[in-house]
Amino acid sequence: MAGEVQLSSYAIDRERLWNSLEQLGQIGGTANGGVCRLAYSAEDRAGKTRFIGWCEELGMTISTDAIGNLFAYLPGTDVEAPVLMIGSHLDSQPTGGKYDGAYGVMSGLEVLRQLRDDGVKLRQSVELVSWANEEGARFQPALMGSSVFAGVRPLDEMLAARDEAGIAVGEALNADPLLSALPHRPERPIANYLEIHIEQGPVLETEDVPVGVVRGVQAIRWYEIEIAGEETHAGPPPMDYRRDALMTAAEVALAVEQVAKDKSPDGRGMVGQMQLWPGSRNVVPGRVFMTADLRHPEDHVIDAMDAKLREMVQKIADRRRVSIEVKEFWRAAATPFDPEHRELWHRLASSAGVKAIDIVSGAGHDAVPLARVARASMLFIPCKDGKSHNELESITSHQAALGCSLLYDAVRQLAG
Amino acid sequence: MAGEVQLSSYAIDRERLWNSLEQLGQIGGTANGGVCRLAYSAEDRAGKTRFIGWCEELGMTISTDAIGNLFAYLPGTDVEAPVLMIGSHLDSQPTGGKYDGAYGVMSGLEVLRQLRDDGVKLRQSVELVSWANEEGARFQPALMGSSVFAGVRPLDEMLAARDEAGIAVGEALNADPLLSALPHRPERPIANYLEIHIEQGPVLETEDVPVGVVRGVQAIRWYEIEIAGEETHAGPPPMDYRRDALMTAAEVALAVEQVAKDKSPDGRGMVGQMQLWPGSRNVVPGRVFMTADLRHPEDHVIDAMDAKLREMVQKIADRRRVSIEVKEFWRAAATPFDPEHRELWHRLASSAGVKAIDIVSGAGHDAVPLARVARASMLFIPCKDGKSHNELESITSHQAALGCSLLYDAVRQLAG
Repeated sequence: MAGEVQLSSYAIDRERLWNSLEQLGQIGGTANGGVCRLAYSAEDRAGKTRFIGWCEELGMTISTDAIGNLFAYLPGTDVEAPVLMIGSHLDSQPTGGKYDGAYGVMSGLEVLRQLRDDGVKLRQSVELVSWANEEGARFQPALMGSSVFAGVRPLDEMLAARDEAGIAVGEALNADPLLSALPHRPERPIANYLEIHIEQGPVLETEDVPVGVVRGVQAIRWYEIEIAGEETHAGPPPMDYRRDALMTAAEVALAVEQVAKDKSPDGRGMVGQMQLWPGSRNVVPGRVFMTADLRHPEDHVIDAMDAKLREMVQKIADRRRVSIEVKEFWRAAATPFDPEHRELWHRLASSAGVKAIDIVSGAGHDAVPLARVARASMLFIPCKDGKSHNELESITSHQAALGCSLLYDAVRQLAG
Repeated sequence: MAGEVQLSSYAIDRERLWNSLEQLGQIGGTANGGVCRLAYSAEDRAGKTRFIGWCEELGMTISTDAIGNLFAYLPGTDVEAPVLMIGSHLDSQPTGGKYDGAYGVMSGLEVLRQLRDDGVKLRQSVELVSWANEEGARFQPALMGSSVFAGVRPLDEMLAARDEAGIAVGEALNADPLLSALPHRPERPIANYLEIHIEQGPVLETEDVPVGVVRGVQAIRWYEIEIAGEETHAGPPPMDYRRDALMTAAEVALAVEQVAKDKSPDGRGMVGQMQLWPGSRNVVPGRVFMTADLRHPEDHVIDAMDAKLREMVQKIADRRRVSIEVKEFWRAAATPFDPEHRELWHRLASSAGVKAIDIVSGAGHDAVPLARVARASMLFIPCKDGKSHNELESITSHQAALGCSLLYDAVRQLAG
């Protein structure tokens, strides 16, 4: 399998890590080999219960907080020192895979198990975290638990968010027998935050590289675009007389793509929604609504992409004698990860004789809000065909073990 | 008003023609100045009743046929000679205008009134026809009455066509007190068919020309296009890895436009429907369904356009590594109108000192099936802003009178 490097030995126990992932994957497991553990559901709770059991075997102390994050604490030799946090999430998409999120949490667990087996006592305390509702599938927005934790989202607003059945997050939390029985986490300063995750994209597999050091998470701009042309009969008006809203939309879509390609390799651009009026096969559309999504890891570049898109759109509007309104619907700033962490990951990979490349995360991760309150970074391992948010999500035990071994090394370096 | 030429006198009575149009426009008249006379409805029947009354004042004999066409017959001095037929339709779109169809029928009536006033006895008999269900709004397909008359559509299939309430054409006809009381038209050979109509496009008005001699009705190809790319997350996959079905669709749409523009001024191309899956603002669409509509007045040219489109689409598919299936959904052959008729219209316009240009009809008309059974042709007059199938449809009495005067001349020439 491309992207898979098999080492003769790993710092951690490959089979134990794999068994943990497989056992967890049975909880909320779907017929097609995926999982369904929607945030705050019974399946999510069952996954967390298993996780707590494993942490308690290691002598860790369990706590929660007002949004339902789950913290497992292992004191270091210097309990006054700021902690090292390892985290990811155990909730999933409705037809999710076994590794998105779970891989990061189970790897943290495996690292702590191995440290115990190796008789290593770390100086800094370690907290292993399962962030609540990372996926945002049942309750929006995504990254809910880590965002509240880092003060990026207001707690009361998040507690008021409702699922499609009308149940609020706060209600789900109050009714949760597991979380409501746990003590709340005491305030502790955090020095470092580490998260390892499957790539959710095809780069590592295609480049045949076993790990990617994540440079950061992209800045995102979401647009809503309204095009007003002229609805006319398909036949009579000659082409030069037309003000065809759909042909305009086609050019705008290709402009979105061009703007992203012009900032290769890091630019991203796509159109995910498009509606035409009147939507008849023999009537020239007079109106189109479309969305656009632009991404880039650097804020100043996404500013330039925004300006270029608007310039191109204006030219299209002038040439086609239509009106095009481009509204920014939402934006997220770029989050670069800690440079010293990134250097550390590269050094550790190099020491292990493993090729590593820099990679950019197109998706959000809990490490993004955590970067507000700690030195934070992420390491990616490949996933088959780049697929995630999908029951077909697939990795090998060697891929998993390699990333986890580097996490083991990083934890010893940072907290040792 | 552009496209309006006012002559000091007309061969026919401008005010009488205008009054007929206005009186007819009251029947099924809408609050916004349009009409609603859906085929075989009470309003359609009321319009036809008025028409019959006017024809009977001229001594014409009324008949119908199995599909509900309405024929008013005025014998010539040589009743054995093949007849001259003048026609159009009195039914309308649900929010239609006062002139689409009605102008042709009322002009035929006005020509016969004027011939009576002028004491002219034509050699050939004249039939003035109101074709049933031209619009295809309530019962599909359009051009139903004229298509059955010309043997282009099977009668039994058309009688079985149902409206949204589940009523079949045959049932509506049986329940029609007006039509079911009329005798059926005796078989008569037809020499010539003339139809005058509003343009339903902007060319005559924009070019400031009062009449257009219709070269023919365009060949039409309808396509259904399925694009299968790869659904992926908006962020992670670099642009070069993507197989974006929507960007592919944008290029295909612009290819449809390009193919039409390459055959300027007569080529037409548009995309009226487009659906994206999954239709989420941050998921690259993996699948798109779209329609396309190509038109040209010559069959060999539309064949070339079809070939060119398929060639362009294949290149797009190869370059983007997606599959694109282009299925022909329906086609109509080009209908060129009679060359001698067209020459006659030009000669008559020239004699009247009126500028005429050749024009192509993008829409279907009753003259298309009639061209299978008679020498047929059409003359267009301008309509305001090219609007039709719209309550805002608008012409002036001078525009109407000018076209009708040329019809008067043509009738005398052909049947005199």
